[in-house]
Amino acid sequence: MSLGTIFGVGLGPGNPRLVSLAAVDVMQSVSSVVVPRSRADADSRALAIARPHLPASCEIKPCLLPMSDDSAKLNEAWDAAAQVLLAEARAGRDVAYLVLGDALLYSTWSYVLRTLQRLAPEVPTCTIPGIPAMAACAAELQVPLAEGREPLLIWPDQPPDDPEPLFSVARNLVFMKAAGHAGTLARVAEKTGASVAAVRNCGFANQEMTTDLSAWEGGREYFTTVLMHLEKKT
Amino acid sequence: MSLGTIFGVGLGPGNPRLVSLAAVDVMQSVSSVVVPRSRADADSRALAIARPHLPASCEIKPCLLPMSDDSAKLNEAWDAAAQVLLAEARAGRDVAYLVLGDALLYSTWSYVLRTLQRLAPEVPTCTIPGIPAMAACAAELQVPLAEGREPLLIWPDQPPDDPEPLFSVARNLVFMKAAGHAGTLARVAEKTGASVAAVRNCGFANQEMTTDLSAWEGGREYFTTVLMHLEKKT
Repeated sequence: MSLGTIFGVGLGPGNPRLVSLAAVDVMQSVSSVVVPRSRADADSRALAIARPHLPASCEIKPCLLPMSDDSAKLNEAWDAAAQVLLAEARAGRDVAYLVLGDALLYSTWSYVLRTLQRLAPEVPTCTIPGIPAMAACAAELQVPLAEGREPLLIWPDQPPDDPEPLFSVARNLVFMKAAGHAGTLARVAEKTGASVAAVRNCGFANQEMTTDLSAWEGGREYFTTVLMHLEKKT
Repeated sequence: MSLGTIFGVGLGPGNPRLVSLAAVDVMQSVSSVVVPRSRADADSRALAIARPHLPASCEIKPCLLPMSDDSAKLNEAWDAAAQVLLAEARAGRDVAYLVLGDALLYSTWSYVLRTLQRLAPEVPTCTIPGIPAMAACAAELQVPLAEGREPLLIWPDQPPDDPEPLFSVARNLVFMKAAGHAGTLARVAEKTGASVAAVRNCGFANQEMTTDLSAWEGGREYFTTVLMHLEKKT
């Protein structure tokens, strides 16, 4: 019997219309999808995006990936996800692992893919890229992520205590998961003269935007993205 | 008469199936599209992606944006593109400006959007994000762009003479338009022990990939993207 293919699919930032045609093709052709979630009871944002595109016959397999720094616990979870996918592929069925945003930019597909390559290099895998959240944030704000010859630095976790020296590397900075650091970033913007714009819950019903970051000081929304740009002195 | 909307649409990296549903919605609803090209006789990659999605009734307006460092010449070209778009919107018709990749990441839509905001802030604009080329490169290579808490630095133009210090800021580097620098980057990878993977003409018929960058020394393909990753020492 021939092996099925394991797809890693980036579903984009949240709006089901920002899914690619290739992602829809995959979702409509696989027998089942695996949807990671961080708590057993958490509703999955990825599933909310996928659902309008999944045929009724498609089986949805939840998969628990704990938010943890414990590498043993994480490895166990990635192995478990990989085994679910491998069981499908070895039964000759195509299966997709669905993630938010792009599939290989701060996504758990990276870990699952590496696990698959280690455990079963003979099983075919295919990655479908997606629109990253930061691109949707820039689109909502109508502000460039970066232009021309200027580097862009993406900071996925809490910013360093003093983010100002980052401007010596890149005049364009993206801070993801920036909630709880709005005050720090607002002060850096004020001190350096950098422009700043921020979105939280981009693409979801409770989306908010601001260019006055100090107003968000103390906010705790997980999906908070801050864009900063420092103009060249002329 | 009510104003039309001017859409800036990111078409993704090259494969027409990597266009988003939202981009297709826009292309099927506007009266005309403006497609920038860099030489009057150059075939437009953006148009090649868009064409399968454009209804026969949709007018295609080419628009010449010179590759130049002359800011007067560039401003003139952006103004001209903006005027074409504004003429449509003021006649009550929706119109889309189509670009490769994401609409606000190293895209001419950034300049055209800024020109529109300056010339005619009353005309509604809307940006549709797209899959950036680097995400498609990572997908083809099946290599992560970045993981976990590690920053990602995107270098859009020729790398610095000595790229090694960039690793002190980010262990993940993306070099775009890296043709002509393959030798330099191969030597940095060898010296530091960083992993490296590269794609040229990603998503097009003449796509090539390598993990031995030295083999591409002297290559001149414009669309060459290099991904580097330096593992943490354990």
